[in-house]
Amino acid sequence: MQAQMETVKRVENLPIGVGGAAPPERLFSRASHRNDTCIPVGPARIGAPNFVVIAGPCSVESRDQMMETADAVKNAGAGLLRGGAFKPRTSPYSFQGLGEEGLKLLAQARMRTGLPVITEVMDTSEIDLIEAYTDIIQVGARNVQNFSLLKKLGRTRKPVLLKRGLMTTLDEFLMSAEYVLASGNEQVILCERGIRTFETATRNTLDISAVLVLKERTHLPVIVDPSHAVGNRRYVGPLAKAALAVGADGIMIEVHAHPAQALCDGDQSLRPEELDRLMADLKLMAPLFGRLM
Amino acid sequence: MQAQMETVKRVENLPIGVGGAAPPERLFSRASHRNDTCIPVGPARIGAPNFVVIAGPCSVESRDQMMETADAVKNAGAGLLRGGAFKPRTSPYSFQGLGEEGLKLLAQARMRTGLPVITEVMDTSEIDLIEAYTDIIQVGARNVQNFSLLKKLGRTRKPVLLKRGLMTTLDEFLMSAEYVLASGNEQVILCERGIRTFETATRNTLDISAVLVLKERTHLPVIVDPSHAVGNRRYVGPLAKAALAVGADGIMIEVHAHPAQALCDGDQSLRPEELDRLMADLKLMAPLFGRLM
Amino acid sequence: MQAQMETVKRVENLPIGVGGAAPPERLFSRASHRNDTCIPVGPARIGAPNFVVIAGPCSVESRDQMMETADAVKNAGAGLLRGGAFKPRTSPYSFQGLGEEGLKLLAQARMRTGLPVITEVMDTSEIDLIEAYTDIIQVGARNVQNFSLLKKLGRTRKPVLLKRGLMTTLDEFLMSAEYVLASGNEQVILCERGIRTFETATRNTLDISAVLVLKERTHLPVIVDPSHAVGNRRYVGPLAKAALAVGADGIMIEVHAHPAQALCDGDQSLRPEELDRLMADLKLMAPLFGRLM
Amino acid sequence: MQAQMETVKRVENLPIGVGGAAPPERLFSRASHRNDTCIPVGPARIGAPNFVVIAGPCSVESRDQMMETADAVKNAGAGLLRGGAFKPRTSPYSFQGLGEEGLKLLAQARMRTGLPVITEVMDTSEIDLIEAYTDIIQVGARNVQNFSLLKKLGRTRKPVLLKRGLMTTLDEFLMSAEYVLASGNEQVILCERGIRTFETATRNTLDISAVLVLKERTHLPVIVDPSHAVGNRRYVGPLAKAALAVGADGIMIEVHAHPAQALCDGDQSLRPEELDRLMADLKLMAPLFGRLM
Repeated sequence: MQAQMETVKRVENLPIGVGGAAPPERLFSRASHRNDTCIPVGPARIGAPNFVVIAGPCSVESRDQMMETADAVKNAGAGLLRGGAFKPRTSPYSFQGLGEEGLKLLAQARMRTGLPVITEVMDTSEIDLIEAYTDIIQVGARNVQNFSLLKKLGRTRKPVLLKRGLMTTLDEFLMSAEYVLASGNEQVILCERGIRTFETATRNTLDISAVLVLKERTHLPVIVDPSHAVGNRRYVGPLAKAALAVGADGIMIEVHAHPAQALCDGDQSLRPEELDRLMADLKLMAPLFGRLM
Repeated sequence: MQAQMETVKRVENLPIGVGGAAPPERLFSRASHRNDTCIPVGPARIGAPNFVVIAGPCSVESRDQMMETADAVKNAGAGLLRGGAFKPRTSPYSFQGLGEEGLKLLAQARMRTGLPVITEVMDTSEIDLIEAYTDIIQVGARNVQNFSLLKKLGRTRKPVLLKRGLMTTLDEFLMSAEYVLASGNEQVILCERGIRTFETATRNTLDISAVLVLKERTHLPVIVDPSHAVGNRRYVGPLAKAALAVGADGIMIEVHAHPAQALCDGDQSLRPEELDRLMADLKLMAPLFGRLM
Repeated sequence: MQAQMETVKRVENLPIGVGGAAPPERLFSRASHRNDTCIPVGPARIGAPNFVVIAGPCSVESRDQMMETADAVKNAGAGLLRGGAFKPRTSPYSFQGLGEEGLKLLAQARMRTGLPVITEVMDTSEIDLIEAYTDIIQVGARNVQNFSLLKKLGRTRKPVLLKRGLMTTLDEFLMSAEYVLASGNEQVILCERGIRTFETATRNTLDISAVLVLKERTHLPVIVDPSHAVGNRRYVGPLAKAALAVGADGIMIEVHAHPAQALCDGDQSLRPEELDRLMADLKLMAPLFGRLM
Repeated sequence: MQAQMETVKRVENLPIGVGGAAPPERLFSRASHRNDTCIPVGPARIGAPNFVVIAGPCSVESRDQMMETADAVKNAGAGLLRGGAFKPRTSPYSFQGLGEEGLKLLAQARMRTGLPVITEVMDTSEIDLIEAYTDIIQVGARNVQNFSLLKKLGRTRKPVLLKRGLMTTLDEFLMSAEYVLASGNEQVILCERGIRTFETATRNTLDISAVLVLKERTHLPVIVDPSHAVGNRRYVGPLAKAALAVGADGIMIEVHAHPAQALCDGDQSLRPEELDRLMADLKLMAPLFGRLM
């Protein structure tokens, strides 16, 4: 802890690294923290031996959509509720999210279901606002090397779920986590969500081996987002099972009460009944892998 | 069958495609053959609802090595024995395999264990020789678009196991299978073995979603080779389980009685006791996924 | 112009895109603006038929380093001076830049040489500060889809140089430029700087064809950064010439008076005499390609 | 030479590499052969300081097409004529080439124009036939690691043009050349023709830096095939100029008298008048780069 405090100081007092001193022990590494980190978030536990399911819509779109989907997530027995209020979209002309109005609906869904919630932050100027409404702050794939954002998230007290970028090596991914850890926030969750490769049959390529490499190198929880990785509802369930089989600490999946009407990512969103079935299957599998659900 | 015969004729009477006629129904597709193809190879069955385990050394190196490893594969309960006699190596100065001597040792291992065997062909000039010794003919990743080889293998009567290349799209992979099918051989097994991406933490990147895409598009059996995909013994077992969980029809893995002495791929070869443990785990899992082992 | 103003309004009044209206004409496209855009920056001109050379150190490190290098850039006849004050580094323990102190040194170098300067912004909170010191604001590869940053840069009056990300398709790249344009800033310069591929012999892979595709689709100036693309001083000169030959509107290269002492990217920085020679070669080539230097 | 002979013996007497002796000096390396290799082929010279242009149709399709295109290639002043008789096609239902009939037409075009010719071999069984008709034997991208083919080509006396595969690292590429060299054929020409990446705006991604890396590591001639790299006629000319600017020893491009009627690759084939213009431009550029054309 003393060692970490010194690291933090070094990060804040720029410039660092100039002196050419040996790099400090990485805070993410098993060498600095042997046992699996388990992060409590309300009634949920993220980290081994638990297997957590985070589910919800891509975006918060309206009160009806959010509450109906939240109820479905709760009824299926998932542990946390996801929903985007600030949406990073490739085109400036696409739906950009409801902003604070979306955060309020998400908070209502939390009250209604008792599920902790997670939502994405896109800019340092939104951190305070989002922190006030959410239980976990998500950093999206496009911001995985937004170091200004990571440093400031290191000074919040909320857990940070960090998504791997489409072309982030695992070394880089861990160093991005280090930015948060070194700035003082020990609660970081890593999420593999598919990388960009030459193959176009799926939206991205789920790098399932990444779970193994990460679990070996770091004590931080590692979860998988199969929805964004493949972009196709039919493949989400089997990949979620593969994630459990390979040793992930959980999954994050998109669910929508009415996928055909979704403003984004409808094709990859499970219907409520599909989520029910998947949860049942995962619960059957979990004991074989020493996991609690 | 009549339709297929006509296709074959067209392939053999070059040039084809000149006339601009509509492309014939693809023989690999679910449209042409709705149900899963299951290929019997001696006592083994390759194809749903079976989950087959093919195991053995990267290369046949010596009588002792081959027999000791074959016994381990048999005792563990695997279904087929693999071993390379002609080895495609990046460098001309690396061990290139024992050639026909290796094939003879492989045949002896088959006699000793009763397990069907599989070995790789690298050139059209070796087909007759290899066909005489093996039960399944393997086409390696580097030859996945060696169309001369594929066409001639279409005229053998042995099943062909076709490995996906490091940068083969799934569309191209299926069209390579089509070369074999269209030349008259209906027994093709597809094998996902990792693709080349920017990530270097693993040898290649196992494209686990490929199993889902392939199983949807083709009736042919689809298996996974986790050993070559990751190149690291510690990751092979969890990936094998993920392959079963995602819906693959089997796995092909490297096993060596003494990995530290292996002439190639020692780092990724399981030890006999590791294979035993993996087989036990897979057998526990199989019923959950409706698989016979 | 009227059309653009309406677009801006739409972007600012979130949510947009909900109504499902047809996408507006893209502002980056040749359809909306047929002729090449040429952006004047002090005495420099960025855009066809000019071929601009932007040169300078990776980071501003000290007064001596900055002034010595700035003099070399000026003497070689380059058009603009680059230098980073806020540095996006993979590790939190690497030199992070001198911050405002670096901006001040950069401004002094501008005064001394008369060259306009360019420096990188990493976060929305730094825009005002950086805008006060620089002539062009650079968005680095890691922030190419930091949409919050792009929107706010759309409201500044300084030209924005947008670097392609390691994983950014050209479609995505153009849509990122559209974020700036649609928010009201018409001065955007695109920079190809290498993409991430499987090949590791060079730091990244310079996608030289990207220049052709971009020049066909957009009226915006397109330049090339060979230094980051290859990461090796010996290859920078030939790639700079290839950029001119293929039709780029300029290059941005790293130069350091004493590369061996550089705090970052020393291996890819040209020495002053190498820059002199390259400038001479480019000036000889330029007339053949209808370019002014 | 003595050293090489010993290497050849070792390659032929399989197995090699078993003994664990130190790897012999690589025959491709600058360490074993300091100066640029220049390969005479009829009146043409392939290797520095020459800049060679190889042009012709993707496939030999008919007498009229071949002769008309050959005349155009001759008139434009190109140095060699290309044309495929055995075509590697992704689909078994696509035009597979005219086979020996194509070789005969190619030989007639050679007689008519006086230009040496190059054509592709796909299988060891075709080597003797192809060697009888052609001046240079081409190994296509898909066969770059067809080691059986490479070894047998090492025993021919014709120069071998080896194309980089879509997935081949430069290290692997050089080791494939080593297979030919180590088997006794010193005349190998390397050809960069685009690699497979995530970007789909061009057919492949021309890795222009590869030329620099290869020229540094090997004495063998290195040429560029822009036609296959981009798959779009409009981009071929500028890329050819970039190849000259970066230091390549030549280019190989597709030309067709009537691209719209081409049986393959029409979109990327230059028209005769486009070839004329490109040749003129290259001749203007060549002296600046110390190249003879």
